[in-house]
Amino acid sequence: MLEKLKKEVFEANLALVKNNLVVLTWGNVSGIDTEKGLIVIKPSGVSYDNMKVDDMVVVDLEGNVVEGILRPSSDTATHIELYKKYPNLGGIVHTHSTYATSWAQAKRDIPSYGTTHADTFYGSVPCTRKLTNDEIKSDYEKNTGFVIIETLESRNIEILSVPGIIVGSHGPFSWGETPSKAVSNAVVLEEVSKIALITENLNHYITPIEKELQDKHYFRKHGKNAYYGQS
Amino acid sequence: MLEKLKKEVFEANLALVKNNLVVLTWGNVSGIDTEKGLIVIKPSGVSYDNMKVDDMVVVDLEGNVVEGILRPSSDTATHIELYKKYPNLGGIVHTHSTYATSWAQAKRDIPSYGTTHADTFYGSVPCTRKLTNDEIKSDYEKNTGFVIIETLESRNIEILSVPGIIVGSHGPFSWGETPSKAVSNAVVLEEVSKIALITENLNHYITPIEKELQDKHYFRKHGKNAYYGQS
Amino acid sequence: MLEKLKKEVFEANLALVKNNLVVLTWGNVSGIDTEKGLIVIKPSGVSYDNMKVDDMVVVDLEGNVVEGILRPSSDTATHIELYKKYPNLGGIVHTHSTYATSWAQAKRDIPSYGTTHADTFYGSVPCTRKLTNDEIKSDYEKNTGFVIIETLESRNIEILSVPGIIVGSHGPFSWGETPSKAVSNAVVLEEVSKIALITENLNHYITPIEKELQDKHYFRKHGKNAYYGQS
Amino acid sequence: MLEKLKKEVFEANLALVKNNLVVLTWGNVSGIDTEKGLIVIKPSGVSYDNMKVDDMVVVDLEGNVVEGILRPSSDTATHIELYKKYPNLGGIVHTHSTYATSWAQAKRDIPSYGTTHADTFYGSVPCTRKLTNDEIKSDYEKNTGFVIIETLESRNIEILSVPGIIVGSHGPFSWGETPSKAVSNAVVLEEVSKIALITENLNHYITPIEKELQDKHYFRKHGKNAYYGQS
Repeated sequence: MLEKLKKEVFEANLALVKNNLVVLTWGNVSGIDTEKGLIVIKPSGVSYDNMKVDDMVVVDLEGNVVEGILRPSSDTATHIELYKKYPNLGGIVHTHSTYATSWAQAKRDIPSYGTTHADTFYGSVPCTRKLTNDEIKSDYEKNTGFVIIETLESRNIEILSVPGIIVGSHGPFSWGETPSKAVSNAVVLEEVSKIALITENLNHYITPIEKELQDKHYFRKHGKNAYYGQS
Repeated sequence: MLEKLKKEVFEANLALVKNNLVVLTWGNVSGIDTEKGLIVIKPSGVSYDNMKVDDMVVVDLEGNVVEGILRPSSDTATHIELYKKYPNLGGIVHTHSTYATSWAQAKRDIPSYGTTHADTFYGSVPCTRKLTNDEIKSDYEKNTGFVIIETLESRNIEILSVPGIIVGSHGPFSWGETPSKAVSNAVVLEEVSKIALITENLNHYITPIEKELQDKHYFRKHGKNAYYGQS
Repeated sequence: MLEKLKKEVFEANLALVKNNLVVLTWGNVSGIDTEKGLIVIKPSGVSYDNMKVDDMVVVDLEGNVVEGILRPSSDTATHIELYKKYPNLGGIVHTHSTYATSWAQAKRDIPSYGTTHADTFYGSVPCTRKLTNDEIKSDYEKNTGFVIIETLESRNIEILSVPGIIVGSHGPFSWGETPSKAVSNAVVLEEVSKIALITENLNHYITPIEKELQDKHYFRKHGKNAYYGQS
Repeated sequence: MLEKLKKEVFEANLALVKNNLVVLTWGNVSGIDTEKGLIVIKPSGVSYDNMKVDDMVVVDLEGNVVEGILRPSSDTATHIELYKKYPNLGGIVHTHSTYATSWAQAKRDIPSYGTTHADTFYGSVPCTRKLTNDEIKSDYEKNTGFVIIETLESRNIEILSVPGIIVGSHGPFSWGETPSKAVSNAVVLEEVSKIALITENLNHYITPIEKELQDKHYFRKHGKNAYYGQS
């Protein structure tokens, strides 16, 4: 079942390796078939070298394995909460990519310091609060999803206009209309994390990009007046 | 038409990937046929993996597509203004390469701290002022070209003696007599951006290279007394 | 003899190169056959490019070469002391990987700043004291083993719960149940060394991860209640 | 003539690319046939991609081209002065490798902060003084050789015990008994430049390695009591 989506999710997972976003068995990508309410996700702790399309695991929105002989990613519950909340998501990515993870560990939002950021993220990439001890002790992965949602809601963020977040003390999640776009957004998130760090090193008094330039760059790539790319 | 130039521009675009100056679909290279007044440029938002020579787009100096079924780079208007102003340019490159973009975001000129810089850039690589809200709102890409020209003019820079610039809050542009040389200059710009950062980190009191050493290195590679390379 | 272990150790050594943990002939991996009391280790100063399975050297726990025509790694005595002290080790790795070596040179423990660290290391990665002049002058490599053991004991560290250490002014050692796991732990040690540096750079007031999150992440991957990976 | 040496020098030049020590046409390696008093060196400004063994240029100790149709490296005069002064050199390398060049630009010696440095360099890697305007204006490359020699002499450095130096505001030179060893030393010089920078970032109060540890590591790899590697 869901052979096309499995292939998409499989290839999106391999793209994490190709883009140097993961080492060892770290990271995971999922995709959803919204009509069927079924999610395809990477199996837990499996080596990218040996992974096959058929190793992808199909789960329903309660987290039950519907197809597949391997255990799904340990972060599956986080993905599920995001898909349930945001029906326009088609793919979700989690990595421990070096620079985005460092910002997460520093517990700081990633400011928009230039057009590279503004092209993809409409404003800062938020960093979530830390989870409470109770949230950690039971249903940790589900609560990670909730704290992401809480952060996005409290800032009135439209989910696709800021297609990524960093979970405090943990690392980045990103998303998009498809698994492949979620990976592209993970690539951008890592790159803007790196250049924001270097920018601060070069200028201790730097402030975020002006609204006009943020708007110009974001909206030349997104929305009805976009003119970047092919129609 | 322009088959030879199309191949040069196509290969110069792929060289951006090979030299780690771009991720995803970022960046673009153009070349000009000065006699015909026609520019060949990368199509907008197309993946480097699948791009073919015939995807290159031919535009005239008013920005009209003369040949090609794809939309040209969204930065085409910037390239055009530079070609119109500087008839000795043969190729132009725009990237969001990591270190050069960070200097652009920090809104600082890149000082010449050593012979690596002096070999290619005769003095600092300038950072442009930011565009006004009006300049951003209409004809943004054309105005980006104008602000580059304004910066070069205000500093009395001969275009080929400083073959690159960084646009404040945005990123680097570089150029040369050919598309291939423009790419080489983009490689050097990224490298000097990185070593200038590290140099400041190692010595907070560092000052730019002395004029004599700047002259020696620049002119052993450029001009009528150059003796670097093969004649 | 020990053909299977030789192959494992050989491949684990090549994995150091693949994971960018070594340059030139630096680094070494060993494995032990606990029943026979025999260690297989990389030969000293041999190029990874030309190395063959049969170049692996077999030594006993007194450091005598039992099989092999090449001299074993100059660090063999350090490996031996660790195997003698900790019978549950199956493989040991030594590298001069960039970031872990820098922490060793800075003579600082690597704090656990996030879940990436907590997933593999239960608490800080300790940095040993420096060796005394006497310890350096005779039996240096054996004494390096002793100072590692002294550090682990003084902090009541269970050997597999913190599968790596940095030797002050020198560099990292890591270990695991197998040579391959020891290499994975070396990969993680290098990665957490890098992100801990960047984290401090981004937030000068950062403090280590809370105990609850450390516990959650460590124990979802290790011990009887682990649920990461495939059973 | 000198076919074997030409092949060695050619391969050593390609090893600069493989080890990420050069971009574009930067860098050069030479080797000497001491008996014949002839040097083989990379041609000036030639692309590594297209370079062939027969492109290597043979020059005598006065800098005259003895064989080869291409112009030799513009740095040939620096190599010559070093070979004339130090008859035990067999190969010399010059690069603009990122981290070593940054130390050169910062005009600072690279301190020995750990065993990685001590294994190859017996003490700090010195940074030369800057050249005077007169030294720059005429015979610049020859004077670069002289200022390297002056620095080594003023510090009583035995040439092979510190097989590299950084020229202030310029970049690194390294050397060895063969072209291949000179390249290995360039690799180590770049690596210790990087870890020394990171070490200082992690510990602002760090001091160089103790003499006993420096001695132990240097002499376990060099001299009559060395026991690293294969005899």
